[in-house]
Amino acid sequence: MPGPVDYADSAIEVILRIREHAPRVHCITNTVAQQFTANVLLAVGAVPSMTISPLEIGNFVAGADALLVNLGTFDAERRAAIETALGAAAEHGRPWLLDPVFIERSPARAEFARGLVGRSPVVVRLNAAEFAALSGNDQAGDAPARFAKTHGTIVALTGRVDLVSDGVRRVKIANGDPLMGQVTAMGCAGSALLGAALAVERDPWLATIAALTAFGIAGEVAGRDAAGPGSFAVAIIDALHGLDGATLRAHLKVHDES
Amino acid sequence: MPGPVDYADSAIEVILRIREHAPRVHCITNTVAQQFTANVLLAVGAVPSMTISPLEIGNFVAGADALLVNLGTFDAERRAAIETALGAAAEHGRPWLLDPVFIERSPARAEFARGLVGRSPVVVRLNAAEFAALSGNDQAGDAPARFAKTHGTIVALTGRVDLVSDGVRRVKIANGDPLMGQVTAMGCAGSALLGAALAVERDPWLATIAALTAFGIAGEVAGRDAAGPGSFAVAIIDALHGLDGATLRAHLKVHDES
Amino acid sequence: MPGPVDYADSAIEVILRIREHAPRVHCITNTVAQQFTANVLLAVGAVPSMTISPLEIGNFVAGADALLVNLGTFDAERRAAIETALGAAAEHGRPWLLDPVFIERSPARAEFARGLVGRSPVVVRLNAAEFAALSGNDQAGDAPARFAKTHGTIVALTGRVDLVSDGVRRVKIANGDPLMGQVTAMGCAGSALLGAALAVERDPWLATIAALTAFGIAGEVAGRDAAGPGSFAVAIIDALHGLDGATLRAHLKVHDES
Repeated sequence: MPGPVDYADSAIEVILRIREHAPRVHCITNTVAQQFTANVLLAVGAVPSMTISPLEIGNFVAGADALLVNLGTFDAERRAAIETALGAAAEHGRPWLLDPVFIERSPARAEFARGLVGRSPVVVRLNAAEFAALSGNDQAGDAPARFAKTHGTIVALTGRVDLVSDGVRRVKIANGDPLMGQVTAMGCAGSALLGAALAVERDPWLATIAALTAFGIAGEVAGRDAAGPGSFAVAIIDALHGLDGATLRAHLKVHDES
Repeated sequence: MPGPVDYADSAIEVILRIREHAPRVHCITNTVAQQFTANVLLAVGAVPSMTISPLEIGNFVAGADALLVNLGTFDAERRAAIETALGAAAEHGRPWLLDPVFIERSPARAEFARGLVGRSPVVVRLNAAEFAALSGNDQAGDAPARFAKTHGTIVALTGRVDLVSDGVRRVKIANGDPLMGQVTAMGCAGSALLGAALAVERDPWLATIAALTAFGIAGEVAGRDAAGPGSFAVAIIDALHGLDGATLRAHLKVHDES
Repeated sequence: MPGPVDYADSAIEVILRIREHAPRVHCITNTVAQQFTANVLLAVGAVPSMTISPLEIGNFVAGADALLVNLGTFDAERRAAIETALGAAAEHGRPWLLDPVFIERSPARAEFARGLVGRSPVVVRLNAAEFAALSGNDQAGDAPARFAKTHGTIVALTGRVDLVSDGVRRVKIANGDPLMGQVTAMGCAGSALLGAALAVERDPWLATIAALTAFGIAGEVAGRDAAGPGSFAVAIIDALHGLDGATLRAHLKVHDES
């Protein structure tokens, strides 16, 4: 029987593998988030692509190692692109994750997101308001675990404290910095990092915890000297680029509640 | 009879209210400006949204506290979105402002902007070239005041010195930094901040002057240590986030010409 | 007979002319790159515009001094915009350059790019993988020179060392910093700077070498103090803004292989 998981070891391993293998992460994401998302991926050593053109998205996804579907821009072209991209991901066995941005503000977006949950995302990353809109439950109690179990996915519910559940296991992650909520696309970019982690770590449970902790810890490093959200957004890119094992180990705050 | 307005007091009040109430500002804006605009709004404590999808923009505007219409990306989808958004803003009594970017370079855009002026924007924010294209007058003399009076709006004409007129009153604002002209989307983001001010201050005259002075003063703070337009763009976000009453009062340069 | 070209003199001259004349560069470019591209152009003193609307792109190109066609977002609207823009550029005698981003990942994009090569771009700027996809040759040997000669263009093949050929002459440029590869849109923004250079220097050979060296040298200046790709992206904007003749002359590494 294996001992308890050392989440620091696995986060370090995931970060090193991303740097070594430079996985390609195809991101269908919103226009506000594209630049910051691409820079987060490049900073950790991954390779972003972002086309939504029907003429080529199948090729891009086939050549990618993971796919992110973010609903922050909800236009007809992206909806069609998502359909094609999910087909290519299924055909080529690429992991994909869903980030249902702002679905609590838009019934049409929420309904579309609920349809996507049936298409086997490996992870659904979202905040409490989005989880409530997706599931019809608020986050209290074991709703995320039940949602994960029912849909065969991992729920990564981010907030002041992140909660991750696969329906059986459950951890809380207390890394991060308050300024992360005052920079646009921070959550979207965190989802893209999670995509890079899924590309190099076959166990999506470990990949999810690795990505969330690494992102939160980079935020803590960035927060130390930032004068506000402007310099924070710059510093978190630098911190992701320079993240090392000692920093990850020293800062990691994962509480296993399984 | 009230004494003269203390524009410093009212700017401080507007900034504090934005931080306290976190107003939602829906921005139909150009793709170049989206990220910087969102970060300016988040830095002052407001909540941006930017969808243009016909399926949901009505919901977003209904749930927002103010609406910005920026013409910097002039595609068919945005033109349709503007129509829906203005309908929702009128129905729910949301203030909206117009930023007719680059209309001096495009007759089609200028004609569209002239149509929007008839839809009761609370404020029209623009530069001298845009004002000339919109009004057929250059900015010399009292053309802005006449335009404001004719159309029942406030003209916020920005430049080295900003001029604000509601057709009766007229102030000049001498805050700002030359580097503001060398960062893309600076004007667009300033308009979004004005949207946040309109959301928390019912008097659009005070809201406009508060937003323009606060933005210009943040620019002055940013300019003190910036090594160029790159570090300036970062520092103005930090400065907006940290703006306090003493700084606003010490720097405010409003000249009342009424 | 003229003596050997002093590429430092001509790079300095090009940078000074951009600052003096503030050329307008119309950029049809991808949504990920728009903000950074605009900021690079503004930092050197040029004026960016980016519309792709069919109602107005002809006016924008007619009023611009150079046109950049970047294929990083490959949607139907941009393909139509490119057609209109190239017509306007030809009619008004505006130089244009092609940046065929990521064509090695998309056969449809590669085919479209090959069609554009027949439309007389003054320069084609691309990396090795893109050159291979465009030409059917890898970059070894004299393939770029042959491609340039066949198509009557200048090939600017960027990488660790840049190679520029017009079919007869050939130079290598060893300026730059490794972090340039870890910031999104760095190559796209470099192409936009090349557009500004083409706008103020009639000899496209000198314009190309000036833009590539200036951009690489700004990268070297930025790399001195950057803590990672986040601060590097900020610092290169500052460096472009402050670039002076002494810095250009001290850093320039052009090796003439003609």
